[in-house]
Order: sequence, then C-alpha cells, then structure tokens
Amino acid sequence: MKIEKLTDTISLQRSMEQANIDHVTTVHEVISDVKENGDQALFAYTEKWDGVRLSNLKVSDEEMEEAFLSFEPQLVEDLKEAADNIRLFHEKQIRQNIDLALEKNSYIQYRISPLDAVGLYVPGGTAAYPSSVLMNAIPALVAGVNRVVIVSPPSKDGKLPASVLVAAKIAGITEIYKVGGAQAIAALAYGTESIKPVDKITGPGNSYVALAKREVFGKVAIDMIAGPSEIAIIADDTAFADEVAADLLAQAEHDPFASSVLITTSERLAQKVSDEVERQLQLLPREEIARASIENYGRIYLAESLHQAVKATNELAPEHLEIITENAKELSEQIRHAGAIFIGRYSSEPVGDYFAGTNHVLPTNSTARFSSGLNIDDFVKKTSVVYYSKEMWQEQYPKIARLARLERLEGHARSVESRSWEKGLLND
Amino acid sequence: MKIEKLTDTISLQRSMEQANIDHVTTVHEVISDVKENGDQALFAYTEKWDGVRLSNLKVSDEEMEEAFLSFEPQLVEDLKEAADNIRLFHEKQIRQNIDLALEKNSYIQYRISPLDAVGLYVPGGTAAYPSSVLMNAIPALVAGVNRVVIVSPPSKDGKLPASVLVAAKIAGITEIYKVGGAQAIAALAYGTESIKPVDKITGPGNSYVALAKREVFGKVAIDMIAGPSEIAIIADDTAFADEVAADLLAQAEHDPFASSVLITTSERLAQKVSDEVERQLQLLPREEIARASIENYGRIYLAESLHQAVKATNELAPEHLEIITENAKELSEQIRHAGAIFIGRYSSEPVGDYFAGTNHVLPTNSTARFSSGLNIDDFVKKTSVVYYSKEMWQEQYPKIARLARLERLEGHARSVESRSWEKGLLND
Repeated sequence: MKIEKLTDTISLQRSMEQANIDHVTTVHEVISDVKENGDQALFAYTEKWDGVRLSNLKVSDEEMEEAFLSFEPQLVEDLKEAADNIRLFHEKQIRQNIDLALEKNSYIQYRISPLDAVGLYVPGGTAAYPSSVLMNAIPALVAGVNRVVIVSPPSKDGKLPASVLVAAKIAGITEIYKVGGAQAIAALAYGTESIKPVDKITGPGNSYVALAKREVFGKVAIDMIAGPSEIAIIADDTAFADEVAADLLAQAEHDPFASSVLITTSERLAQKVSDEVERQLQLLPREEIARASIENYGRIYLAESLHQAVKATNELAPEHLEIITENAKELSEQIRHAGAIFIGRYSSEPVGDYFAGTNHVLPTNSTARFSSGLNIDDFVKKTSVVYYSKEMWQEQYPKIARLARLERLEGHARSVESRSWEKGLLND
Repeated sequence: MKIEKLTDTISLQRSMEQANIDHVTTVHEVISDVKENGDQALFAYTEKWDGVRLSNLKVSDEEMEEAFLSFEPQLVEDLKEAADNIRLFHEKQIRQNIDLALEKNSYIQYRISPLDAVGLYVPGGTAAYPSSVLMNAIPALVAGVNRVVIVSPPSKDGKLPASVLVAAKIAGITEIYKVGGAQAIAALAYGTESIKPVDKITGPGNSYVALAKREVFGKVAIDMIAGPSEIAIIADDTAFADEVAADLLAQAEHDPFASSVLITTSERLAQKVSDEVERQLQLLPREEIARASIENYGRIYLAESLHQAVKATNELAPEHLEIITENAKELSEQIRHAGAIFIGRYSSEPVGDYFAGTNHVLPTNSTARFSSGLNIDDFVKKTSVVYYSKEMWQEQYPKIARLARLERLEGHARSVESRSWEKGLLND
C-alpha cells in the first residue's frame, strides 16, 4: 500500500461514472411500459432479463416456509439477534409530536406521522445481502409504516434467495414480489394489478435500478443513491498491524472502487500495515476486487499528530471511521464529519455492518458533511398545525396584514382581514 | 370558479415544465466558469445580468445601517415579533443525542450535530420576501449552524432591498453577498476568493437557480425544489363565503400555476364562494395572476360528506389545508397528508406564512405524502457511534463472522476475528 505524508487536506472523491445514455433511454422505456401495461410488462421483462417465465409475482407462504427449512437454524438465531439489536436502537429514535401552547387558547403543533407505504429493493444473486434487508426494513417498520414491501429479481428457477426471505420474515415483512430492475422500481412508483404503489423506495441496486429511482423521484421519495463504500482508520502505535490491515481489506473486498485509508502517527505501524495488507490480500477469496481497490483508492497517510489526523478526517468526512488509539473515546469527540464512528480495537467496522444495532446504510463520498445514515426520520414526515382563537386573531391580524403588504401580497392581507368584514348579504 | 361533484380521487398535479436545454447548458457553463475564475466570473455575470459593475460583493455595515434607517420602525417590530415566534417553535424541535448502554460496558450512540455552513438564496426584486429570509435562516441558526450566509442579486444601483437586509439582521445573519443566479449557487458550492463554500443551499429562486441547485447537488446538499403553491379548504355551511374566497385568492395571487381548491358539503357555500371569488378578483391588485390561477387550477368540489372530503384531501396531500367546519379540530386528526393544517375560521393561511411560528417552506404537488416542511432536521446530521468492549467482542464476534460468511464476505469475518489472532512477529 502506498504511504504518503499527510497534508492538511486529503480527498478521496472518486469521479463517478457518468450515466450511460443508452441505459437512461432503456430505463425510461421500461418505466413507460410498466405504467401502461402493468403486470404484463413485468412478466415480459422478467422473462427477458432474469430468464424465467413467471405466472405469479408474489412470494407464497409455501416459498417462505421452504426457505426457513433450508436455512441453518444457527444463522436464523444470529439474524434474529441482529434484528433485535437494530430494532432496539431504532426504537430509541422514535419521536413525539410537538405541541406548543400559545396565548389566548391558541396553539401550534408539529405532528410526526409515518409514511403509508415503503418499497425496499433487494438486489439479486450474490449481492442479495440479508443484513441489508434488516437494515432497510426494520427502521421503516419501527417508524410505523403500515405497508413495507420487498421487490427482488428471481433467479432462473423463479425463486428468491432463502437468506432474503428469512431476513424479510424476521424483520416482519411478508409482502414480497419476484421482480427486479427498473421494472420493479416502476411498479413500486406507479403500481400494477399485483403491486400497489408506495410512497418511498429504498435499498441498493445496480445502475439500471439507480437510474430508475432517479426517474421516479418526485412521484415518490427515494433514499440517497450510495457510492462505493469507504473507511478511514485513525491509529497510533498502540494498534496491531494485522488487525488494521484486516479492517482495511474488509472494506476493499466490497468493490474495486471502495476506498480504504489509514491515517497514523506511527511510521512503524504504517510500514507493517503496508506489508500485512499484501500478505493478507494473497489469502483473501475476493483478492482481485480488494487488490484493485487497495491499488487505486487505498492510502496510508503519515500524520505529524493526532490533531492533524482529526483535521484531515473531518475534511474527508468518511462513511466509516475507526479510531484505534489511546484515548479513542476522547478523540472521537473531535470528529465532526463521519457516517459512523467505531471506537477502539474491539469495535471493528463489521460489528456495525451486521450486529451492534446502528444502521449500515451510511453516507458515502464525503456527503457525511451534510447527510446521515438511514434512520427513523427517513420514514416519517411532519405536518405543522396552526390554531388561532378569535382573540388571538384579533390581536395579531394587523401585524400579519402589514407584513403581507410589505411583500405586496394584498390578497394575503385581505385574507386575514376578511374575518373583520361586515358580512351583509354574503351569508344571509 | 368551476363547481364539480367530488369523486373519490382528485389530483391537481400540474405537469411541470421540462427544463429548457439551453438553460441547462448556460447554467453548466456558468458553474464551470465560477469554479475556474472565482470572483472575476461573479463580477462579470453580475455586470451582464444584473446590469451593475461591483467592486465588492459583501454587504457592508454601512449598507446594513442605511437599510434600517430607511425602514418603517413598526415593520421592524413586526418582523422581530415574527422572528421570535419562528425561533420559539423551531427551538422546540431541537433534539438530544441518543445514548444506548449495552451489556459489558459497551454502548452505541447517535450524535446529532449541526452542519458547518449553510447558504440561503434570496431572489431579487419583488420576489425578495423578508418572510422567506426569516423562514430559511432561523431554523439553520437554531439548529446551531455556525455560518449562515445570504446571496441575493443586486438591483441596478448595486444594492439589495432594505427588507432583505433588515430581515437578515433580525434573523442574526451578517454575511451577505450581492450576487444572484446560477453564479451565486456555484460560488456557494465551490467557493471563490470572497465566498467560502457551504455544505447546504436552501431558498427559492428562478429556473436558472433551480437548475444550478440540481447541478451542484451531491457536492452540497440542497433543499427541495418547490413547485407552485397550493391550498385546499374543507368547509361546511358554517363557513363565510367571503372569507373562504379571500383565502383561495391569497393562494392564487402567488402564481398563475398556483392551485386553490375548495371541498365543501354545502351547495349554498359553493355557489356563494364562486360568486364572491369573481367579485374579489376584480378588486385585487394582482388580478391577472390570480385570475389565471383560478381559471386553470381553481376548483370547487361538492362533497357528499366530510368523510369523503377528508379522503379526497388525503389523496391530494395539499401543501396548505384549511379546515373551516364545525369540529374542525377533531376533523384535523383524520388528515394524514398535508404540509400544514390551519384549523378554524381564525387561522387563515397567511397566519402561518408570516407569523405563527411554523415554517412556510412546505412540500408542494402532493409530495406532503412523503416529505415535510423546512425544519431543524434539515440543518443537522446524525453520526452513529459503536463502542464494543473486549468482553462484548468476545461474546459476539463468532455471530458476526457467521453472518459475514453467509454473505460471502470473508474479509469482513476476518476483520472481527483478527483480534483473536496470535500476533507473533506482527507487533514485535
């Protein structure tokens, strides 16, 4: 791994690929087709792209049972425990309505209510991660969303992976459709005979899915479109090189565009981690992916001080940050920008990916400066409420009318004044 | 105004104009130019489009003082009172960090922190609304954003409207730049010699500004791009026709694309409101705009029951909803989708536009189904934190490793397992 001296600003913003215009056109056509022809279009695209002719999109109770029977009981227990942890943490995020009493029996409020319906996209094949099912579904359900639906592309035998069905059931979802790609996003946004439309679509997908989400945005809400994953590790010479290397590689194995960065005050650690990364790379099943990631987007930075390391990290605003130093807790207080922070040697990043209860859907590519990981707030909305009594109105309306006229909105002024008009014949 | 029978689903989604491709190109060029040439580009575009050659972008203390001196003291008082009300309500929205203690001295957290810097766009000329300055700036400042900046295009004399400067000062903003259009958005996103970049840009603007916000989205966060304003009023025969008509027109005077809808169970009220709208239209300074809006997007719907009216309103998900009926408070509890609800005769919509304390930046075009008005949450972000002790890690890591291997992410499994590896020569 390359070792460089840390300068005050480092940036690992990878230039995103421009959307392929042919893909944009295809996605647009698919969406139009589904809007027009509903289920018929879904069956046709599923045959064309997933290679299977279905007669029914919905996963049956029998398919669910079969998935559980085929699944190792220990893994069911592990997923259930992870789900409980995620549920517990997200329940803590639930918020109460705000009720502000004003003078003269008036009040204003802020009513927080769940969305009606949410659709979760789950990719197919080896990218079908049961942990992502839990991470997307549980916050929606905890928020109180009444209807949470999964769509996912079937394999050639017309089935979904058992791990997805098991995770969905554990999360509490039973409305699952065997349809993927842009056609699934179109169905969620506009509805078909089988699939009622939803209000928000979340979950990762390939570039067709991402383009389809962009196109239906506005008709429905979507979650952020995530970039490749990234980690920064701040470490001093109390850290163990093999552990730091393993953590860097856990990120690198995701994607050739993933980025793994170590910022350390220890020259000794820097050199050892560099050697150790190479040693462990050769033993990794996904060596090819991880090697490409490390070569292109992996760096070890030598910092003059932890203060400098923190400053550079705040500039970077990484998705994941591990702090493996003396006084890691205190140091973490100085971090202003990161998606998630993992403190100390025993909190390596996969603890959060799978189990601790925090969400693993996190802002990438420096957007942690201004955005947050998936959470309860993503599945609720707030409605403000105003109630003015007659007495309150009487006291306040001249001010409101003056402010409206300052903006030359005479109609606004008349609206508040109209309650004082002589009614004459108007309501005889 | 047209009177129709209410069917169960009404929709007033106006087809948005497609972005003009020439505008897209212009905006792209402007942004590139500002990125490359900084202030020089800002001065050049300001001369070209605003017709004034500036030598300095920042509003001076003298200009601020001059604005206050030119302003009616009563209006300063009105704006201050409005600002206090907005501040009070938004302070209620401030949230606390979440701290969840786990077993074995471990914990997970959710740290809520303000964005570092926010830029607020304020349109020029007659569209420079001091109330919008308060509504955008105060939530950011209450959220704890350290730096809140205003950009606004100067008039030909090189000045900004006194009302904008006065409202900014009352809100607590003193960093104000005389620059507008796409060039101002580019400066906020990328920074120039005079203007340091921000993390989020909010506030309304013309189509160039909206296109520029879309283009810089990702580099910085942006607020929603609002469509034309709309109101729905649910009224029974206890409502006064002249008041309902005035409220419909207050919305219609905004924009020819604004939409004003009355849903009533009273045929008598329907007819009277229709007549009264025509009568009041003829007296309105902005008659032309309001008439176009009423003719194209104004409707009176006759409902069979209040139940049917509520159902249709929830389908519509209007930006603003007034309920002027008997038992309006109880009826409001049945509303699931609206940006803001105004209850009873004395809470006409301008009460919220200017004064009550709720925010007037609200979701339009049925997006209240899944989004919220501007609020404190728009100016904070959440960072999750995981701390596992050695004992906790020891108990949990085999589960985490199993879940990682279920997803064929061997590197993730090794990351949590590495803490148990014999270190041998690795850290000698």
